[in-house]
Amino acid sequence: MQKTRQAMITEWLTYVADKLRESFNRDIKVAEKSAANDLVTEMDQWAERYLVSQIREHFPNDFIIGEEGCGDNVTSTDGTIWVIDPIDGTLNFVKAQNHFAIMIGIFQDGEPQEGYIYDVMHDELYIGIVGVGAYVNGTQIDQYSLESLEESLIIGNVMNFIDNRYNMQELARTAMGVRSIGSAALQTISVIKGEVSLYFSAGLEPWDFAAGYAIAESLGIKTTDHLGEKLSILKKSPVLIAYPNVHKQALEIIKQTN
Amino acid sequence: MQKTRQAMITEWLTYVADKLRESFNRDIKVAEKSAANDLVTEMDQWAERYLVSQIREHFPNDFIIGEEGCGDNVTSTDGTIWVIDPIDGTLNFVKAQNHFAIMIGIFQDGEPQEGYIYDVMHDELYIGIVGVGAYVNGTQIDQYSLESLEESLIIGNVMNFIDNRYNMQELARTAMGVRSIGSAALQTISVIKGEVSLYFSAGLEPWDFAAGYAIAESLGIKTTDHLGEKLSILKKSPVLIAYPNVHKQALEIIKQTN
Repeated sequence: MQKTRQAMITEWLTYVADKLRESFNRDIKVAEKSAANDLVTEMDQWAERYLVSQIREHFPNDFIIGEEGCGDNVTSTDGTIWVIDPIDGTLNFVKAQNHFAIMIGIFQDGEPQEGYIYDVMHDELYIGIVGVGAYVNGTQIDQYSLESLEESLIIGNVMNFIDNRYNMQELARTAMGVRSIGSAALQTISVIKGEVSLYFSAGLEPWDFAAGYAIAESLGIKTTDHLGEKLSILKKSPVLIAYPNVHKQALEIIKQTN
Repeated sequence: MQKTRQAMITEWLTYVADKLRESFNRDIKVAEKSAANDLVTEMDQWAERYLVSQIREHFPNDFIIGEEGCGDNVTSTDGTIWVIDPIDGTLNFVKAQNHFAIMIGIFQDGEPQEGYIYDVMHDELYIGIVGVGAYVNGTQIDQYSLESLEESLIIGNVMNFIDNRYNMQELARTAMGVRSIGSAALQTISVIKGEVSLYFSAGLEPWDFAAGYAIAESLGIKTTDHLGEKLSILKKSPVLIAYPNVHKQALEIIKQTN
């Protein structure tokens, strides 16, 4: 029997996650963390090469956008496009050896179709299939927040808040509290899990948002740019991921940017 | 054979952690989170009453400072003082049902002696015994950072950074990145684990810092106020917890506060 695409991707991600975890045992010790900078580069590139080779073998007609540059030079959203980030949260990978993730987003003619985020150190694989639903390690996610911005926690990059990008300080003051994990993947997962109701970033690359966009979409969580417009997986953009009511409130605040 | 103090505290904390986890199954569901506000109050008070009654039974000569007010009216640091926070990160407890902790710090004549932090949802109990060492679920912690502030991640409250309390924006700009979890306990644990090298807060109550102070002390991680002075468990204060070299660098930056 032929394996489904989903089963194959799950196998690949589990394999990459194991290798990333093993890499810590190899040679990162306290006070030798400069070696970790080389390690992250090495593992990042290895993981992308591995994922790209698997995709090319099994889905030869599809296109690939990858952070590390092993993919294709994609200029149109036509067809099936895989967007991959082998290690999201590289600084966390190096410094904390925790709080990083592997991401794959699959888009069909520019529309999000499937998203995969593997939280490596917590061994949690989030899968979202648009039109079907979202799952963590096989269990359906039914968390859904109806709270207002005033009643919610939000998440984002601390430097974005300090620099008040897109009026983010007002977002912070309106919400009940602000969190920051340092990984676009895991910040999106916080929204998916309903721990926070909004994630805003002043600028994300396609590989930073593609997987999360698809998972959010599968749950009816809204993902747009700072103007409420549709995101293109061909370009960098501010990204707002939030439950619909909070998304609407947030756009009003972001719109007031000087 | 008589149980050690450490074994008793471990039992109490495990019991409280179980009850806190169970409380989520009881009646918090999506879109009913306002009920969660009542729940946190109820569980907070129940947990403090439980811990206080255990301490009074087994250590009748000791004093207790508790967030919820079930303890003593302590005005001197003489003798053995227990400082307890039944749920640190109450907003996370309510909103995220994750990232909160139970804390107990034990001080002898004003000096930190033992610290306990239970990360409930990750089921991790951190214990630090000054002069002996620190442990997570029984395994010794040997992580120790020698990196400079420039090479490190740091952690703190996002509103403190936005408001630039004690020159914290300069701390943020000097470091490699900033994280925020929304629990003094778990932010201290990030330092303990070496994920970040510094945690600074513009204002913590004794129950917010007592346990972490003792665990940090057991590992040679420095805990002081914003001027580098010793903390008193009788009063609220800015708190700086960092590896010694980063602590020194941070004090220079904090000192330049307007």
